[in-house]
Amino acid sequence: MPATERIFTAALIVIGDEILSGRTHDKNIAQVASWLQVQNIRLKEVRVVADDPPAIVAAVNALRATNDYLFTTGGIGPTHDDITVDAVATALGVAVVVHPEARAILEAYYATRGGLNDARLRMARVPEGADLIPNRMSGAPGIKFGNIFLMAGVPTIAAQMLDALTGTLEGGAPLLSETVGCWVAESEVADLLREVEKAHPGCQIGSYPFFREGRTGANFVIRSTDAEALASCLAALGNGLHAMGKDFASGGI
Amino acid sequence: MPATERIFTAALIVIGDEILSGRTHDKNIAQVASWLQVQNIRLKEVRVVADDPPAIVAAVNALRATNDYLFTTGGIGPTHDDITVDAVATALGVAVVVHPEARAILEAYYATRGGLNDARLRMARVPEGADLIPNRMSGAPGIKFGNIFLMAGVPTIAAQMLDALTGTLEGGAPLLSETVGCWVAESEVADLLREVEKAHPGCQIGSYPFFREGRTGANFVIRSTDAEALASCLAALGNGLHAMGKDFASGGI
Repeated sequence: MPATERIFTAALIVIGDEILSGRTHDKNIAQVASWLQVQNIRLKEVRVVADDPPAIVAAVNALRATNDYLFTTGGIGPTHDDITVDAVATALGVAVVVHPEARAILEAYYATRGGLNDARLRMARVPEGADLIPNRMSGAPGIKFGNIFLMAGVPTIAAQMLDALTGTLEGGAPLLSETVGCWVAESEVADLLREVEKAHPGCQIGSYPFFREGRTGANFVIRSTDAEALASCLAALGNGLHAMGKDFASGGI
Repeated sequence: MPATERIFTAALIVIGDEILSGRTHDKNIAQVASWLQVQNIRLKEVRVVADDPPAIVAAVNALRATNDYLFTTGGIGPTHDDITVDAVATALGVAVVVHPEARAILEAYYATRGGLNDARLRMARVPEGADLIPNRMSGAPGIKFGNIFLMAGVPTIAAQMLDALTGTLEGGAPLLSETVGCWVAESEVADLLREVEKAHPGCQIGSYPFFREGRTGANFVIRSTDAEALASCLAALGNGLHAMGKDFASGGI
């Protein structure tokens, strides 16, 4: 198999009672998903788990073994409910240690902000053997350990950490996509979608219906790693919609 | 244990490549989480999985056994990529059949909308033995099978289905909460939070920092099923913040 056909996968664990209670609306799933697309890495699964060590340990061990990369968001701050580092260390079977560089970063950051107390020093704790992910926004770094990346739960800080990782992870074949939008009930064109997908191996067609301006419509997203197959599939779908007398918009509506 | 102390739990599986690709920002996690709070059911875990039958089957079997209720969103429409019913039937070890009442609903709905074709009839397919969840918006019903509830992926339709289920599921002890907001770095009050939580068994304190208007703040959310313990914990936290000279706002900021 050519190197470009190797598919790299990732999973994400969102850690936090506040997401499961509905108090906080997660923004990290979409952010990490979009970022991974650009890195040519496929997000295969997301789990949202509580601030509960056994739940985190189980999710980490289930997902790190079956994916090229594992990301977590949440639970790396200074308070008692920030338990991600301990849970991940348990999952990995390693100790938790204070990372000297993280300590130095925090000492510098808090030098003009009241000094480094015990709570703040918690943010220098890492699973033994881990490296740091820079965080220009609030000092406290993210953590990388092998194929695992621990990031902040605050979306703007997680974004900084993703930015620091941009271009550093090996990705695979880019997943290309084309979107066709049509003011049609998807149930009218379901046969066409199925037949076009079947006739174009290596292409998947997703159908995403919506209700807008009092009308029914759908966007059809074709995905493939093969540019020629994608173009051929797109043309076949367009021809099929045209033959049914349906107007459609390339790029979606 | 008194009946009111029984905790009822739920899990949610969000099914759809469009969430994992970042194309669509999920709205169902927060919606289901908030709805479950009102039903006095705890959302324990969420998994977002691809339009991939083995992934759905694995998630359904993992989560239905360990929770009182299991909800899914997505994949119950008329097109080829709507595979939730088949995957759930596989997980349950039952056949897929056309539900007569669902067929009648769809026939009535599509009578003035072009008639019931094969694709639309797909939306009457259910795991054998299932009941329906009404959907006033688009005709196609949701599906309930034992403790499993299959709902639409379109958030407005999922909302209708949740509405139809309101008050029909047994819940447990209400999880009460109080929020205290403070313009403080959480790392300044981490010791206080830990000590107050430790002194109030049955109460959990979550700390949710934010950056706003150029300042650092945090909301502290105390959760408990015991109203007296909650009030006592809230008072202790307020006293502690006061003793540190920190202003705070009941209800959060």
